[in-house]
Amino acid sequence: MKAEIITIGDELLNGQVVDTNSAWIAQRLGALHIPVVHITSISDKANAIKVALQQAEARADVIIMTGGLGPTRDDITKATVADYFGTTLVRNEVVLAHVESIFRRKARKMMPAMNIGQADVLANASVLFNDVGTAPGMAVERDGKYFAFLPGVPFEMKFLMENRVLPMLRDTYKSDVFVYNTYLLTVGIGESHLAEHIADIEDALPSFITLAYLPRIGMVRLRFTGEGSDIETLASITDSFKQQVVERVKDYVVSIDNCSFEEVLVQTCISAGATLSTAESCTGGTISAQITAVPGASQMFQGAAVVYSNQAKMDVLGVSPDTLVQYGAVSEPTVKQMAEGAKQVFGTDYAIATSGIAGPGGGTETKPVGTVCIAVAGKSETRAQTFHFKNDRAINIERTVIAGLTMFWDMLRKEG
Amino acid sequence: MKAEIITIGDELLNGQVVDTNSAWIAQRLGALHIPVVHITSISDKANAIKVALQQAEARADVIIMTGGLGPTRDDITKATVADYFGTTLVRNEVVLAHVESIFRRKARKMMPAMNIGQADVLANASVLFNDVGTAPGMAVERDGKYFAFLPGVPFEMKFLMENRVLPMLRDTYKSDVFVYNTYLLTVGIGESHLAEHIADIEDALPSFITLAYLPRIGMVRLRFTGEGSDIETLASITDSFKQQVVERVKDYVVSIDNCSFEEVLVQTCISAGATLSTAESCTGGTISAQITAVPGASQMFQGAAVVYSNQAKMDVLGVSPDTLVQYGAVSEPTVKQMAEGAKQVFGTDYAIATSGIAGPGGGTETKPVGTVCIAVAGKSETRAQTFHFKNDRAINIERTVIAGLTMFWDMLRKEG
Repeated sequence: MKAEIITIGDELLNGQVVDTNSAWIAQRLGALHIPVVHITSISDKANAIKVALQQAEARADVIIMTGGLGPTRDDITKATVADYFGTTLVRNEVVLAHVESIFRRKARKMMPAMNIGQADVLANASVLFNDVGTAPGMAVERDGKYFAFLPGVPFEMKFLMENRVLPMLRDTYKSDVFVYNTYLLTVGIGESHLAEHIADIEDALPSFITLAYLPRIGMVRLRFTGEGSDIETLASITDSFKQQVVERVKDYVVSIDNCSFEEVLVQTCISAGATLSTAESCTGGTISAQITAVPGASQMFQGAAVVYSNQAKMDVLGVSPDTLVQYGAVSEPTVKQMAEGAKQVFGTDYAIATSGIAGPGGGTETKPVGTVCIAVAGKSETRAQTFHFKNDRAINIERTVIAGLTMFWDMLRKEG
Repeated sequence: MKAEIITIGDELLNGQVVDTNSAWIAQRLGALHIPVVHITSISDKANAIKVALQQAEARADVIIMTGGLGPTRDDITKATVADYFGTTLVRNEVVLAHVESIFRRKARKMMPAMNIGQADVLANASVLFNDVGTAPGMAVERDGKYFAFLPGVPFEMKFLMENRVLPMLRDTYKSDVFVYNTYLLTVGIGESHLAEHIADIEDALPSFITLAYLPRIGMVRLRFTGEGSDIETLASITDSFKQQVVERVKDYVVSIDNCSFEEVLVQTCISAGATLSTAESCTGGTISAQITAVPGASQMFQGAAVVYSNQAKMDVLGVSPDTLVQYGAVSEPTVKQMAEGAKQVFGTDYAIATSGIAGPGGGTETKPVGTVCIAVAGKSETRAQTFHFKNDRAINIERTVIAGLTMFWDMLRKEG
């Protein structure tokens, strides 16, 4: 049982929009042990859609297609797919009533006439009713293959997957080969050093277990994938190899679940009853935003002060004017005072502070673009460190966030 | 002249990692008038890599492949591609010296032996020297087709594209058919109402101009694409249709360039000499992070207070305890005081404040998950509004950010 995802839209091909739907769909199918073997993004053109369906049908058993179901005339998926299946479009009165009710409920003007066409569905399809939008999804089964056609708007696609497609696949398309994935997240060790440390364990892996390195800035996630017919044996053997790796590199392991670093930090703080605040200059609130994106963060996160100007650094966080004059805004003494100020203002156990020159402007000879100072204030001490990044603004912000979170993690482990 | 992008990695197929490389590459190729016609994500398996190369070679003239060039043994691209081209791998001493120097410079331990293999390159390739990482890129030209093989780590890929691949394509692969794209960003009008407003203009478009609707939460971007041999005529005709649309829906147009909403806000503030701060509860610093991600934001953004706790709302922003008791943290009176507090603390002309129940926890009968209050304080007044979103935490945060920015935009236009 294999799956393929096809996303439609010129906005994907010209880079206007990043395809986040495919990763989300792949995760959900993976949870049902239906591995995705191919992801394709194609143009809003009839020929591209037909060729992609043909190739997908040859490679996969479950084909999920998103996009091109809207009311405007660049949305040609439905007519093209009807042609592909040699069927027609028929008006569905339940969908029509639903689309009309959405326009009524939102107290908008009359429903634009073009939306009537949204009630037309493939004659050979089961309608996947869309409670959260106007474009219905459709499911077609043919020759043992399952096709789902879904809107490209992420939350509508997610609603239809969660409530219509996945329950159906869960019941019907059971796989005889199980795929078992388990993860490990390391921080503070590079990919090749990590690989060197665990080379002998990797050598000893049986052929049905593969190990993948998923590096990101400042961290490496390891994925162990086992394939076999008996899920319990598979899980037990795979886990035993993972456990060997965990013991080998335990100083760098932050999670043995498929968690993000932020989730680990939030959970660790909640368990320890520890609270956090941030004082951010060059990261502009990104650390705070990433921490608070984790559900439950309000139990450990008290707040953040984003202090772009020197005045705000003094007024909000009590940074001393002398320190700013003597050492500058991007300096270890300044970030230490920012972190201690945030700890006090928000009444937290810990605080992370950042100040740096993210670029592209603002660099000087002694402090070029990429110079970043980070401090972490803990229960008993405040530590600061200076980093010399380069690259562009977005990367400098990302590196600073990871470095700040890593310094915080080290402090948490030391004091916890 | 057409391009295809192939990204390699099981982490893409199982949804662990969202493929952001493809959109970035597509934008850069688009700027050279080389349209991307197909994007494919495939597994780290030799057969998948070979089939993808065959199909891409049949469809496109420029093939960009990323991923699988790292030092660990799940990185099999190089050997597979050598096989595909019927060539071998040869050690490149310049690359080897560079890889060794990276390990020396970082004052790490000895270079792990597996990194020696990173200096092996395809015998038929030009080496694309990688100043920012250990994996070199490679370019192969064969039968009038250009292939680039690049690492999957985004900033390494970007460095090699910017400094090696794009300059080469700019000089050599000139297209005889020009593609001219021009954009329009609208906020506050739904896709189908927008389409209805401009239906007659869309009807009158000549066959060589296409119009695409790119809806996102709270905004719709329009893209006009013209194709033809004379770039100047093409641009002039396409622009004239766009201008008709701009005049028709001018109340909703925020940009006639390919800008983000945040970029428009930053530029508008800088031009007007206006300054902004934010006071964020449920958005957790996301508005601040998105504004400060724009280069130059420090000229108009003074700071943000992320105030998750009631204590912080009082201490940092001076919200009255009585207001919090009487109306609650998620209320229009509270967000108004938050916005006015931020204006004062940061000394700005404008402030945006948010407070809401993002979910999944925290909802009550009178204020269910999705209830969000937003205020904007301007020069002469403070406005507040209550929204009833639903969906999940991430979507609620995104909707709140867009609604807050839209309220700020309206205030800016009114007072500017």
